[in-house]
Amino acid sequence: MNFNEIQVGQRASVTKTITEADVILFAGVSLDVNPAHMNESYAETTFFKKRIAHGMLSAGLISAVLGTKLPGEGTVYLSQELNFTAPVYFGDTITAAAEVEQLIPEKKRIILNTVCTNQDGKEVIHGKATVSHK
Amino acid sequence: MNFNEIQVGQRASVTKTITEADVILFAGVSLDVNPAHMNESYAETTFFKKRIAHGMLSAGLISAVLGTKLPGEGTVYLSQELNFTAPVYFGDTITAAAEVEQLIPEKKRIILNTVCTNQDGKEVIHGKATVSHK
Amino acid sequence: MNFNEIQVGQRASVTKTITEADVILFAGVSLDVNPAHMNESYAETTFFKKRIAHGMLSAGLISAVLGTKLPGEGTVYLSQELNFTAPVYFGDTITAAAEVEQLIPEKKRIILNTVCTNQDGKEVIHGKATVSHK
Amino acid sequence: MNFNEIQVGQRASVTKTITEADVILFAGVSLDVNPAHMNESYAETTFFKKRIAHGMLSAGLISAVLGTKLPGEGTVYLSQELNFTAPVYFGDTITAAAEVEQLIPEKKRIILNTVCTNQDGKEVIHGKATVSHK
Repeated sequence: MNFNEIQVGQRASVTKTITEADVILFAGVSLDVNPAHMNESYAETTFFKKRIAHGMLSAGLISAVLGTKLPGEGTVYLSQELNFTAPVYFGDTITAAAEVEQLIPEKKRIILNTVCTNQDGKEVIHGKATVSHK
Repeated sequence: MNFNEIQVGQRASVTKTITEADVILFAGVSLDVNPAHMNESYAETTFFKKRIAHGMLSAGLISAVLGTKLPGEGTVYLSQELNFTAPVYFGDTITAAAEVEQLIPEKKRIILNTVCTNQDGKEVIHGKATVSHK
Repeated sequence: MNFNEIQVGQRASVTKTITEADVILFAGVSLDVNPAHMNESYAETTFFKKRIAHGMLSAGLISAVLGTKLPGEGTVYLSQELNFTAPVYFGDTITAAAEVEQLIPEKKRIILNTVCTNQDGKEVIHGKATVSHK
Repeated sequence: MNFNEIQVGQRASVTKTITEADVILFAGVSLDVNPAHMNESYAETTFFKKRIAHGMLSAGLISAVLGTKLPGEGTVYLSQELNFTAPVYFGDTITAAAEVEQLIPEKKRIILNTVCTNQDGKEVIHGKATVSHK
């Protein structure tokens, strides 16, 4: 997609089930071995009562929707705000949706509203992304 | 660490070399198979001239420093701003550092300045994090 | 094993449990992020009712039996037919078996019948392989 | 894409650099630890002179193009022929292309010509795929 083909209000999404395997792999990749993600016995003592996935793992789905769908190939990721509003449990199916909110043609920049929701439609992350595009 | 032990100006960091393997694993975990990360022939045609790591992968190191060091166990991640200011290439060694900027005792919240730099000291990500802590 | 030691009717197999982790890793390696493999909510709406493993992942076990057992080290893989006859679900334990069907001594080629079955003995893949061997 | 939107001659492709990390991960996932893929000292003594990637790993890119592009979501993989015609070395960038060759409307089946080529345009795999589609 070229910059000129992108319009305010355009939307795209990706969806993925967040698995225990994802959490283990993300821990190894990121060094984030916080026991809230890795230790079920510990997690049972926390507010969330069981292990939760890394917030930044679900944020990776936002990167996927921007980098592969909207605007897709040629995207340069400039900034992302992330508000983590609810936990993601193992086995939750998360949809990351991006909607074009503003176009800045002189800089070929796009501001998108980005939201992750779980299989029940509950929002788990919201925030805005800024990308530039060819 | 308890909330009361945390002081403005306190710092911690984690450091990791970002490898080709990390990028492959992150792609499977996140669905982000953008050719800028996966296709060297394509990447040679881009502004960056070679494959770059996912920005959100380096952002995972920020999650690691917050979740394992400062404030560490018991952290609840509330929000993160990410400004991606330079590319991370395969083999770069990234340090994610967090510094306490503000304490909000009535909500047990902590605002940290978070910065990722590469092996040459060049900043690749900066932004602020907000966490709550027991 | 040398070509001369191989006989028609000779058999070998390898067996592996196909896990959620395998599917995540295979997705990153192959770019195949089809929601039938990655999205449980989507998968529930499909004919198979839950996520299935990539067929080509189980086909990898055929490569393993040829490359490590029969004929093993020195194998050059020339061709493979794959008929995907039943789904592989996460947690299924798949056996890939190869049986020598024909020897072509003048070209040092071996044609093998290759079959993958699950823990219940149900065939999930069948087809023929052709390899050459020292 | 629905079956009715697919036409003979339609094409799609995916491209990926095949890395050492991919080979290690594929070995773990598939059990195929053949030294031609895993042992550089051994590989130097073979006809190919260095480690080569698993043929079935590049075949995974064919699965990706069918499962994510053409026909994409809703694909059921029925069969695949694979002829491995040249080695894939670590660092090669492989394009898997699929072209619709025949439509069988009464069974909603599609026969595609599938070819993998490297960064120099050299064919490394060719064969036909059969899929059914919603």
